[in-house]
Amino acid sequence: MHNLTEAVNRIVSESKVCRGVVHLFNVGSTGALGTIELEPGLEEDLPAVLDRLIPASRDYGHERAWHDGNGHSHLQATLLGPSLTIPVKDARLVLGTWQQVFHLECDVRARRRTVAVTVIGEGPGTADSRKAVSLNAGWKER
Amino acid sequence: MHNLTEAVNRIVSESKVCRGVVHLFNVGSTGALGTIELEPGLEEDLPAVLDRLIPASRDYGHERAWHDGNGHSHLQATLLGPSLTIPVKDARLVLGTWQQVFHLECDVRARRRTVAVTVIGEGPGTADSRKAVSLNAGWKER
Amino acid sequence: MHNLTEAVNRIVSESKVCRGVVHLFNVGSTGALGTIELEPGLEEDLPAVLDRLIPASRDYGHERAWHDGNGHSHLQATLLGPSLTIPVKDARLVLGTWQQVFHLECDVRARRRTVAVTVIGEGPGTADSRKAVSLNAGWKER
Repeated sequence: MHNLTEAVNRIVSESKVCRGVVHLFNVGSTGALGTIELEPGLEEDLPAVLDRLIPASRDYGHERAWHDGNGHSHLQATLLGPSLTIPVKDARLVLGTWQQVFHLECDVRARRRTVAVTVIGEGPGTADSRKAVSLNAGWKER
Repeated sequence: MHNLTEAVNRIVSESKVCRGVVHLFNVGSTGALGTIELEPGLEEDLPAVLDRLIPASRDYGHERAWHDGNGHSHLQATLLGPSLTIPVKDARLVLGTWQQVFHLECDVRARRRTVAVTVIGEGPGTADSRKAVSLNAGWKER
Repeated sequence: MHNLTEAVNRIVSESKVCRGVVHLFNVGSTGALGTIELEPGLEEDLPAVLDRLIPASRDYGHERAWHDGNGHSHLQATLLGPSLTIPVKDARLVLGTWQQVFHLECDVRARRRTVAVTVIGEGPGTADSRKAVSLNAGWKER
């Protein structure tokens, strides 16, 4: 799991949007986004829960198409979801004290990832201050 | 499962929004939206996983209200979620190569569905190019 | 579970946004938002399903950090998600007849909650009518 909170806060700050929302999207079908308290325990727990609910297996229908053993990766990523929107106030993310933004790699091999970031809202002295920026989220074996 | 990717791309293209996001919403409490690689294997796997995690049963509390045997439909739809937002660039959806937009009918009988589509962002030479359009997503027995 | 539908409709109506979307976000890592048919049966069923899929336990890794027995609360909230976006038309939420907006408290003790509400879209005679408002969602033992 990757902590995207500061990377997204930098993009929001550069956009000079004071009040609005920021939208994050995992481009690709085997990665997901969400919020969680990013501490070592939950970084173990979340992938473990997903692996228990939707275990790796060669029995998924998806295996017929690609034989690459990542059917569960697709299903886990779809369940958690690729899209996350967060409020912005004073050019910062509005998050709880223990709430961070994460990217979870669900695939079975290393991937370069793009998370598209779009800031929507009102900036100082500008009628339109929407931005679209990309960042790469690497991969960590789990 | 229905592939909404091209229908949504047409709406985005007609809106002439170059840069922004498009929001999709399933109107109704027993249908859901998401992204997945839409190939026949995963089209089997996703409903099967949901039916395993939240099986059809007459034992849900919901059965007391309606006696229509679709308690699991409501719960599956709520877990997957009715709302999806996707980035837009150059008047096209930003998606991975194998990533498509789907509507999943979770109910136990045929339904006409409306997916509300709202495009938000910057168009060419216009300060405000937001649109709201609806489309119907039919139903396929699963 | 708390029904936020009317509170959000009031905020949307006050914003005078006719056409657009409203974004809701649970500030904090152990609460979640979604849509469901809010009747007593499903208000029992949804927490029960989550407790079955991700049961309370002292065995989560999260327990090492805090010893407060709410590892499952974090995981349930992350799976359901903190973020929800709903279309707005004629200054009202676009929802199905039986579809309401809920806040689910996943934590093991009473919490004051803030759900940040951001309305984005076109108002009557104004180029920019985005608003950001907060409301408190109390807690109910389940």
